[in-house]
Amino acid sequence: MPRSPKPIIRSDIAYSTPERISVRGKDLPNEVLGHMNLGDFAYLQLTGKAATPQQSAMFNAILITLVEHGMTPSAIAARMTYAGAPESLQAAVAAGLCGLGSVFVGSMEGACRMLYEAMPAEATGRDDVDFDAIARATVASYRERGVALSGLGHPLHKPVDPRTPRLFELAAQNGMSGPYVKLMQSIGAEAERVTGKSLPINATGAIGAICCEFGFPWRIVRGFGVMARAIGLVGHIMEEAERPMAVEIWQRIEDEASAHLREPT
Amino acid sequence: MPRSPKPIIRSDIAYSTPERISVRGKDLPNEVLGHMNLGDFAYLQLTGKAATPQQSAMFNAILITLVEHGMTPSAIAARMTYAGAPESLQAAVAAGLCGLGSVFVGSMEGACRMLYEAMPAEATGRDDVDFDAIARATVASYRERGVALSGLGHPLHKPVDPRTPRLFELAAQNGMSGPYVKLMQSIGAEAERVTGKSLPINATGAIGAICCEFGFPWRIVRGFGVMARAIGLVGHIMEEAERPMAVEIWQRIEDEASAHLREPT
Amino acid sequence: MPRSPKPIIRSDIAYSTPERISVRGKDLPNEVLGHMNLGDFAYLQLTGKAATPQQSAMFNAILITLVEHGMTPSAIAARMTYAGAPESLQAAVAAGLCGLGSVFVGSMEGACRMLYEAMPAEATGRDDVDFDAIARATVASYRERGVALSGLGHPLHKPVDPRTPRLFELAAQNGMSGPYVKLMQSIGAEAERVTGKSLPINATGAIGAICCEFGFPWRIVRGFGVMARAIGLVGHIMEEAERPMAVEIWQRIEDEASAHLREPT
Amino acid sequence: MPRSPKPIIRSDIAYSTPERISVRGKDLPNEVLGHMNLGDFAYLQLTGKAATPQQSAMFNAILITLVEHGMTPSAIAARMTYAGAPESLQAAVAAGLCGLGSVFVGSMEGACRMLYEAMPAEATGRDDVDFDAIARATVASYRERGVALSGLGHPLHKPVDPRTPRLFELAAQNGMSGPYVKLMQSIGAEAERVTGKSLPINATGAIGAICCEFGFPWRIVRGFGVMARAIGLVGHIMEEAERPMAVEIWQRIEDEASAHLREPT
Repeated sequence: MPRSPKPIIRSDIAYSTPERISVRGKDLPNEVLGHMNLGDFAYLQLTGKAATPQQSAMFNAILITLVEHGMTPSAIAARMTYAGAPESLQAAVAAGLCGLGSVFVGSMEGACRMLYEAMPAEATGRDDVDFDAIARATVASYRERGVALSGLGHPLHKPVDPRTPRLFELAAQNGMSGPYVKLMQSIGAEAERVTGKSLPINATGAIGAICCEFGFPWRIVRGFGVMARAIGLVGHIMEEAERPMAVEIWQRIEDEASAHLREPT
Repeated sequence: MPRSPKPIIRSDIAYSTPERISVRGKDLPNEVLGHMNLGDFAYLQLTGKAATPQQSAMFNAILITLVEHGMTPSAIAARMTYAGAPESLQAAVAAGLCGLGSVFVGSMEGACRMLYEAMPAEATGRDDVDFDAIARATVASYRERGVALSGLGHPLHKPVDPRTPRLFELAAQNGMSGPYVKLMQSIGAEAERVTGKSLPINATGAIGAICCEFGFPWRIVRGFGVMARAIGLVGHIMEEAERPMAVEIWQRIEDEASAHLREPT
Repeated sequence: MPRSPKPIIRSDIAYSTPERISVRGKDLPNEVLGHMNLGDFAYLQLTGKAATPQQSAMFNAILITLVEHGMTPSAIAARMTYAGAPESLQAAVAAGLCGLGSVFVGSMEGACRMLYEAMPAEATGRDDVDFDAIARATVASYRERGVALSGLGHPLHKPVDPRTPRLFELAAQNGMSGPYVKLMQSIGAEAERVTGKSLPINATGAIGAICCEFGFPWRIVRGFGVMARAIGLVGHIMEEAERPMAVEIWQRIEDEASAHLREPT
Repeated sequence: MPRSPKPIIRSDIAYSTPERISVRGKDLPNEVLGHMNLGDFAYLQLTGKAATPQQSAMFNAILITLVEHGMTPSAIAARMTYAGAPESLQAAVAAGLCGLGSVFVGSMEGACRMLYEAMPAEATGRDDVDFDAIARATVASYRERGVALSGLGHPLHKPVDPRTPRLFELAAQNGMSGPYVKLMQSIGAEAERVTGKSLPINATGAIGAICCEFGFPWRIVRGFGVMARAIGLVGHIMEEAERPMAVEIWQRIEDEASAHLREPT
C-alpha cells in the first residue's frame, strides 16, 4: 500500500527513565503522590493542566455523581461475568463498561453537544445573550426533527432530579454557572412549557452543561462516565465475591425464559 | 433443576427513590457531592466506610500511582479499538482493561496474597515479630517451588523503583507503615541477599503491602488497578482523538508482519 | 417505579432437560451433531430455520470472507491483551472484537441499510424495475447530504476487490443474485460515472447486498462480522502464544512515542 | 531501556496485495469461498492445514456443541450490554465472551490438560497401555490434592450428558477414538467407583479428550468455546432486538436487591 512519509508516533502524556516517572510534565512520586486527590489527577491526565481549587471541586463532584447508580444493567453484566471468570476481575469490569452507550451514560454527550451547537459563536463573553430565544429555537428544531431533547426528564426522579440542583449549586459556588448552564435551564423551561410535561433537567443534562463550561470536547464526555463507573463496578464485584447473586439471577431467568419450551402445553 | 428455597437477591450498595439517591448510607447530592474527592468516594463505595484523613491520603496515592504507565499494551489496545469504533468510546476503554491480568497490574494481588499468607496469625498487634525469619522462610519456600516472588524487581526502574520510597514515606506519615510493610522490606532484602541480584521492591510490591495494612481482601486489589487505569485510558483515547497514531501503528505492523509472505524470496 | 403488569421473560432459542438439549427445536446431539457444519448451525441459531443447500453455500461463504483480514487493529488489540492476561484468552478475543465498529466491519450494515432504504416497496417480485434510476437517485441523495456511499472503494484492492466477483458468482450459482445485488451494481457504476473515480464494490458492499437477498435485518449484519472475526482472533492468539510479537510492538511504540519527552532538545 | 537486536515481527496467517487475499497459503476468493464450510475454515485458520473429511466432521461437531447453552450468564451479560449500547453490537458480544473463564467453558481446557499430563510419553502408538492403572493414579492424585477432576459430572444432565455418547460416537466414526478418549472413560469409571457418585463424562470432558486426539495445545482449547459462543451470542442479541427482556430483568433485580434499603422495617 503506497503511503506518505512515515508519520510520527508521539504521545505527550507520560514517560519513564530508570529513576523518573513523569506524567503530564509532573514528577509522579514527588510532585503528585501525596499532593493530589484522584479526581485532580484525572483532570491533569485528561487536560495536561493542574485543576484550580474550583475546577477540582467541580470535577470531583461530576465524577462522583457518575460512579454508582444501583443495580444497573452494567452492574448485572459485570456480576454475571465475574461468576464465570472470577480469576479475570478486569474482564468483569470491562463487560460492565461495554454497555455504557447511547442509552445509558453515553447520553451525557448528547446534552453537551446540543448546548455547544445551540450556542452562537458571538455569545461568548457577552452579558446580553437572549438564552430564552436560543432555547425556543433549539426546542423547536428538535421537535421538528422528531429528536428527543438531551438531558431532560427521568423515569424515577420527578418532579426534580435531586442531583441537578446540587450540581448547579456547586457550579455557582465555583464560578462555573455560565452561559451553558443558563441555556440548559432555558431549554428545560421551554420544553416543559411547550410539552406541558414535567421534564426536569436530569443529572446528564446538568453534567453536560457544566462540561461545556469546562470547555471539554463533547466526544470525551462519555469517558467521564466510563471511568467513574469503573470504580462503581469494582464495588459491585467486591460485593458479588462476598455475597453472590449472579447464579441465582441466571437460574431464575433461565427457568422462566424457557418454561414454554420445556413444558408442553 | 431442583433448587433450594429461592435465595434472596440483595445489595447493600445503593438505592434510589424519586427524591433521594443514597450510596452506602449517604445522601449522594447532599452528603457526598462537594464534600468528598473521587478517591474518598471510591473508598466509601468499596468498603462502606468513610475514609479517615490518613486513609484518604494513602488510598488516593495508591490509586493515582496506578492511573498511567505510558504507552502500555493496554493503552495500545484501547487506541486500536477506538480507531475502529470511535462511536463506542466505552468499548475502547473496556478493550484496554481486558489485558490487566496476571502479567501486568494483576500481579499486584500476588504481593498482597504472599504477605497475608506469610504473616503468622499470632503476629497481629505484637511488637516482637521476627520479620527477617518470616522473610527467610518465605523466600526459601518460593525458591523451592520455583515461583517468582511477587512485587520485586523491575525491568526499567533500577536500582530503585522511584514510586516505592515515596509510597512507603506516605504510609509512615499516615500511620500505615505496619507489619506488612516491614515484612515486604525484609523479603526484598532477603531476596537480594540470596540471589545476589538487584531486586528493588516495585510499585506493585509497595502497594500490595499497603493494601494489607488497609486489610483489603487480596482478591479485590487488582480492581484498584483496573479502576485507576480506566482513567488513564480515557486520557489516551482523548489524545488519540486529537492526534491519532493507531492507523500508523497498524500499517507498520501489517507491512512488517506479512512482508515475507508478500515478497517472494 | 410504577410498572405495567410483569412482562414475560421468554426466549425461543434453546432449552435443556436432564436427558435432552434442544436448540431451535432440534435435538442437538441427535439431529445436529454430525449432520450440520458450523455455518449451517449459525444460520439455524440466528433464523430458527434450517438452511437450504443454496443458503448453506452462500452463508458459509459470507462468514468465511469475514474471518481473517491480516494484522488488523483488532488482531493487534487481541495480541496486546493476551500479552497482559494470557490466562484470560476470552478477554483477548473480547478486546479484539470491541473495535469492530463504524470504521471496520460495522460498515457492512451501512450497505445493507442503504439498499433496503433505496429499494421501493413495489419493486419486490417485479422484473421491470429501473435499477439505474434508483441508483441515480441514491447516489445523488448521498452526495447532496455529503455522506459517503457504503460498500464502495477500497484503499488497497483496486480496481477490483477480488472477493466481490467471487461472492456475486456464488450468489448467482445459488439463486441469490436478485434485485439488491443488481441495485448495488447499479449504484457502483453510477458512483464511478459521477465521480470519475475507481470505486469498486468492496466485500462489504457485496455482503451487504447478499444479506438483503437473504432478508436479514440490517441491524444484525454487523454480527456476522463479529462472530466470524472471533474465529480469526483465536487464530491470532494461537500464533501469538507460539511466537509472540506484542511485547516487541509495545516497546517500539513506547520508545518512539515518548522519545521527545525523554530526550531534552 | 537497553534491548537486544530488534526482533522480527512476523505472522504466517494472511496477506493481501491489490489483487490477491491469501489466508494460510490459500487464495481466499478462489480456493476457499464456495469450497469450504465455516468449521473447516476455522480449522485452516488455526492449524494452517486443510481438514481431512474426518477432521472436518469432528471439528464442526465440537464447535457446534459449544455455540448455544440457553440463557447462560454470558447470554444475560450480552443482552444487558445491548440494552445500554444497541449501536455497539460488537461490544455486547464482547461482554458476553468476557465471562467464559475458569467456571464456564474455560473448564474445557482442564480436561484436555489433565489427559495430556496423565498420559505417559511412552504410551503413544502402543496397544497395551493400561488405561485403568493411569486412571487410578490420576484420580488418586487429584483427590489427594483436593482438586476436582475435570470433565466429570453435570448439575442437570444426569445420569448421562446426552452430548457425550454422541461426541464419542462421532469420534469412533471418524477415527479419533484413541488413547485419550479411552483414558477419559477410564477416569470417569474410576471416579464413580471411588466416590460412589454418578459422575458422567460431560461435554467438556468429551471435547477435552477429543481435542487431545487432534493434538491441539490445551491452552487454545478454551478458544474453541469462545469462537463458537460468539455465534450463539449474536443469536441472543438478534432475539433481544426483536423481543427485549433486559430492561425487565434489570427492573426486577434492582427492585428486589434494594428493597431492604428503600423500605424501612
